[in-house]
Amino acid sequence: MITGHVFIATSLDGFIARENGEIDWLLQHDQAGEDHGYDTFIRDIDVIVMGRGTFEAVRGLGDWFYNRPVLVLSSTLANQAVPAELDGKVRFTGKSPSEAMAMLEAEGCRRVYVDGGRVIQSFLRLGMVSDMVITRVPLLLGTGRPLFGGVQRDIALTHTGTRSFPSGLVQSSYTVMQ
Amino acid sequence: MITGHVFIATSLDGFIARENGEIDWLLQHDQAGEDHGYDTFIRDIDVIVMGRGTFEAVRGLGDWFYNRPVLVLSSTLANQAVPAELDGKVRFTGKSPSEAMAMLEAEGCRRVYVDGGRVIQSFLRLGMVSDMVITRVPLLLGTGRPLFGGVQRDIALTHTGTRSFPSGLVQSSYTVMQ
Repeated sequence: MITGHVFIATSLDGFIARENGEIDWLLQHDQAGEDHGYDTFIRDIDVIVMGRGTFEAVRGLGDWFYNRPVLVLSSTLANQAVPAELDGKVRFTGKSPSEAMAMLEAEGCRRVYVDGGRVIQSFLRLGMVSDMVITRVPLLLGTGRPLFGGVQRDIALTHTGTRSFPSGLVQSSYTVMQ
Repeated sequence: MITGHVFIATSLDGFIARENGEIDWLLQHDQAGEDHGYDTFIRDIDVIVMGRGTFEAVRGLGDWFYNRPVLVLSSTLANQAVPAELDGKVRFTGKSPSEAMAMLEAEGCRRVYVDGGRVIQSFLRLGMVSDMVITRVPLLLGTGRPLFGGVQRDIALTHTGTRSFPSGLVQSSYTVMQ
């Protein structure tokens, strides 16, 4: 059984990036020496699924920092070749979220890191997210790209733990009740 | 010096009520015996400021439960008489948030509970909120009336504490850096 997992940071008002995609505010809060658990989280992940917006934002940051295979869900990119420097690290697909999960399961993947606002929203709508770790940055942005939106029904969660950091980040974990 | 203070609950996706104003989902999570600190908070409050939306939502819940004077900021209600049963407990005013705060300060008020999404947003924009206690309910609503929105600039906060409850509520406190 393949499962989706979310690990993401947002501003206190729920944005994962500014309107233009910038995450300067997030990087500023990434204090040296503070372990927010990403390495532990990614250790158990087989593959990362994201949309084009997240892919392009991450590429724009410079060196490719994912150490897991990445599948980009994008009908726009599906017709293009993966950039040479990302060959073997990234695949593009025009498949739907459900089709993509079926493909990954057939390939032997078990745990999928679901990243980026729109893909997370799609996966939540489809009941394909098992748990979420949400880290709140102590900042109001006012506008930007929202983490949530348009789930179109109540989705109940079970809180499994919260910890806070000297930097002011507050990290809560939830399992999604399907 | 008069100061504004926020104490409010939101869904995990940042809504304080459904589109129609309902807070059924919030009341369901209000477990008997769990003290979320409201009584302690309100003890130091001199007056409560809210908008028409919050006033009407609270009236719709039945018995009036505020034990502090309430000032409703509403140009619509300002021309109307306060309902007889709320006489002495509630005032209506057409004043702006800044004018209202000046009036309350002249009356000797020091600590103002700022309640309701739109009024909180106005007060944040004007730099009239000193601190916020935000309690997250473990639920995604998808749509509704947002707590935040349109602050139009970054507002930095200092995290001063977080606690979680058996019900799954997570309560974080912040001071606003002006």
